[in-house]
Amino acid sequence: MTDPADFSTTPTVRLRPKAEARALRHGFPWVYADELVTDRRTRALAAGTVARLEDAERRPLGIVALNPASKIIGRVLDRDPEAEIGPAWFEERLARALSLRERLFDAPFYRLVHAEADGLPGVVIDRFGDAAVIQPNAAWAEQRLDQLAAALERVTGVTVIVKNGTGRARGPEGLPEETLLLKGALDGPVPVPMNGAIYMADLLGGQKTGLFFDQRPNHAFAARLARGARVLDVFSHVGGFGLAALAAGADQALCVDGSEPALDLAARGAEAMGQAAQFTTRKGDAFAVMEALATEGATYDLVVCDPPAFAPSKQALDAGLRAYERVARLAAPLVAPGGFLVLCSCSHAADLTRFRNASARGIGRGGRRAQLLHTGFAGPDHPMLPQLAESGYLKALFFRLSP
Amino acid sequence: MTDPADFSTTPTVRLRPKAEARALRHGFPWVYADELVTDRRTRALAAGTVARLEDAERRPLGIVALNPASKIIGRVLDRDPEAEIGPAWFEERLARALSLRERLFDAPFYRLVHAEADGLPGVVIDRFGDAAVIQPNAAWAEQRLDQLAAALERVTGVTVIVKNGTGRARGPEGLPEETLLLKGALDGPVPVPMNGAIYMADLLGGQKTGLFFDQRPNHAFAARLARGARVLDVFSHVGGFGLAALAAGADQALCVDGSEPALDLAARGAEAMGQAAQFTTRKGDAFAVMEALATEGATYDLVVCDPPAFAPSKQALDAGLRAYERVARLAAPLVAPGGFLVLCSCSHAADLTRFRNASARGIGRGGRRAQLLHTGFAGPDHPMLPQLAESGYLKALFFRLSP
Repeated sequence: MTDPADFSTTPTVRLRPKAEARALRHGFPWVYADELVTDRRTRALAAGTVARLEDAERRPLGIVALNPASKIIGRVLDRDPEAEIGPAWFEERLARALSLRERLFDAPFYRLVHAEADGLPGVVIDRFGDAAVIQPNAAWAEQRLDQLAAALERVTGVTVIVKNGTGRARGPEGLPEETLLLKGALDGPVPVPMNGAIYMADLLGGQKTGLFFDQRPNHAFAARLARGARVLDVFSHVGGFGLAALAAGADQALCVDGSEPALDLAARGAEAMGQAAQFTTRKGDAFAVMEALATEGATYDLVVCDPPAFAPSKQALDAGLRAYERVARLAAPLVAPGGFLVLCSCSHAADLTRFRNASARGIGRGGRRAQLLHTGFAGPDHPMLPQLAESGYLKALFFRLSP
Repeated sequence: MTDPADFSTTPTVRLRPKAEARALRHGFPWVYADELVTDRRTRALAAGTVARLEDAERRPLGIVALNPASKIIGRVLDRDPEAEIGPAWFEERLARALSLRERLFDAPFYRLVHAEADGLPGVVIDRFGDAAVIQPNAAWAEQRLDQLAAALERVTGVTVIVKNGTGRARGPEGLPEETLLLKGALDGPVPVPMNGAIYMADLLGGQKTGLFFDQRPNHAFAARLARGARVLDVFSHVGGFGLAALAAGADQALCVDGSEPALDLAARGAEAMGQAAQFTTRKGDAFAVMEALATEGATYDLVVCDPPAFAPSKQALDAGLRAYERVARLAAPLVAPGGFLVLCSCSHAADLTRFRNASARGIGRGGRRAQLLHTGFAGPDHPMLPQLAESGYLKALFFRLSP
C-alpha cells in the first residue's frame, strides 16, 4: 500500500484517448473505470491510492483518489496536479467549508462537509457544537482519517470526534462497518438546538450521524404552518418535524416511528423544551398506525410523512413510487379540512416529477384535492456540485388539502 | 352575451366521447378545445360564458368558464355542477385564499389569489395593506369584475382596488389593455415591508402589479449571505434583492436596471430604510453594465441577476438559454473569491435542469467553479395545482464560487 505521507511515490494514471477530459476540466468530479487506461500497474494500486491524473496527451488534470475495484475508479481531490494531500490541504478544505456554515448559521450545528461539493469526495462530517461525526465513506479518506481528524480539531476546535463507519458506500470501497470514538468522551445524547426546538442526537448509536440536518429548512417551513395546530409526524425519527412544530406554537404533536430508541430521544427533546405535556408518541409500523388512526376518526391540522428511501435504486423505483403513493393515500384522510400535508422523499431514484406525481395521485385516491404550496430540498449545508445536481436526493412537498 | 347574474340561462357543454374525463375528475383544471363537442351553439357562446360541463355520458363534471376562441376552451370554476358563480361564491374563494396567507405572513402584503390554484382561473390579486390590485386575465372574470371587487372589499376590508389589465393572457381572451382605479384613491407609491426592507410599489404605473412578491423567499435566502457584503443587484427592478441585502446588514448595494422609474423607486426604498448612504444605482443595459464593471475591475461579495423571461416560449428556448448562459458568464468574474452568485429565471420554457445547466456552463466559461447551495422557487403565496406544477416558472439558483 502506498504510504500517504510519502509524496514522491505518487503514481500517475492516464485517461484513454477517447475519454472526455472536458467534463473533468469543467468541474466534473469523477473518472469512470472505462475512461482510464487500466494496465496491470494501475489495477494493482490499492483502493485509496492518491495519483496524478493526466489526459491522453499527458497533460495534467489534477490529483485523484483511486479505487480500481469501483465503477467510479477515480475521484478528483484537487485540480492542481502538484497539490499535496496532507495536513495543510485538509485544513484548507475544512476552513473553506467552515466559513460557509458560519455565514449560514448562528450556532455550530450543521453538516460541515458534504463530500464532493466541499472538495472532500466521499467524506461527510456533521458538527454538533463541540462534537463532530466523520463518515469516511471512501478508502482514500479512511486511510487518512488521522490527518483529517487532526485538521478538523485544529480548524473547528471540536473536542469530541466520532468515526461513523455505517455508510452504504463503504462496502464497495472495501471498508468495514464500525463506529467508534476517535477523541474525547460522550456522556449520552447531545442536545441540538434547531429552529427553536431541541433535538437529542445519539452520536454513537443513532441512525447515520445521529440527526438529519438536511431537513432543517423543511422543518422550518412546516413550523410556519403549525401555530395552534394538532400535528402528526409519521416516520418521525427523533422528532424532526414534530418538535419544530411545537417550538413554533403547535398545540400538540404525535410522533410515530418504528424505533423505540428514536421515539425516546424525541420525548426527551420535548421534555428539554418544557413541552412534554403536548407531546405523545406511538411506536409501530407507520402504514398500520395511519390506518388505525383513520379508523379512530382522528384528524390533524398538519400531517408530515418523512419515510425512509423507498426507491434507493433504479430497480426499486416502481415499487418505491407505489409506496410513496400509498403513504399519501393513507395520510390524506388524516388531514383536517383545509389542513396541510407534507410529504418527503429521500430517494435518489425518484426524481421530483415522479415523486410529486405519485404524491398527487395518492392524495386524489385518498379522496382529497390539493394546492402545492412549496417544494423544499436539503439545506444549504448540503451543497451540490452543479454537475451532480440531478441527483439531489431530498424533496419535501407542502400541500394544502381541500376543505 | 349571457347575463352573468341570470343563473337560469346557464348553458350546458359536453365532452367528446373519447375525451379524458378522468384527469378532470382528479383535479385537472382545463378543457382543451379538441375535447369538447363544439357545435354551432357552443361556438356561438361569448367568451366568458359560464356553463355546465358534462362528460360524453351526460354525467355532470362541474361548472366551467368558456372561451370558444382559445385552445383552453374551458376552465373549471367549480366541481359542483349546481354551484352559482355569484357574490357568495367569490367570497368563499377569497376567504379560503385569505386564510392561507394569514397563516403564512405577519403583515397583509402578499399575492392573495394565484389563479387556478386558488380556484379562480385567470385571476391574480396582489395585496398591499389596504390596497389590492386585481389582474382579470380571463374573460369570465373581466365580466364579473364588479362582483369580484365587491367580494374582495367585504372579505379583506381593502379600501383601494386597482384593475391592472396589462397581462399577456388578456389578448387571447379578447380583452383590452387598461389599468384603472376601481375604488379609493392612491397618493403615490405604497411602502411595502418585506424581509425587513421597505419597497416602493407603484400600483398604477409599475410593471405587473407594482411589485414581485414571488421572489420573497429568494430575497430572504440571499439576505442570509449578505452580512457585511458588497452587493450587486442586476436587473434590480425596484431593488428586490439589493434592499433585502441592506436590511440584513450588507455594507453597500448597487442596483442596475434599464428603467429609471424602477431605480428611483429602489432609491426611495433605501431612503425609507434610512440606508440611502449605502445605496447606489446605475441605469443601463445589464449586459453592458456588467462588462463595464468587469473592465473597471469591480468585484462584489454577492451578485444577483434576476433578468426578465429570456425564454417566454418554447420557440424562444434556445436563444433564451444562451442569454442565461451569457448572464452567468458576465456575472461570474464580478464575484469576489469565495463569494456568492444568485441566478434567476422566470421563464416557463426553461425548466430547472436546462436553466441550471446553462448557468453552470456560463460560470465555467466565466472562469469559475461553483457549489450549488440552494434552489428556490416562487413563495407559498403562489401555490400551484400539482397537475400544473411542471410549469413552475420561477427558479433561483444560489451558487458559491471558487476562491
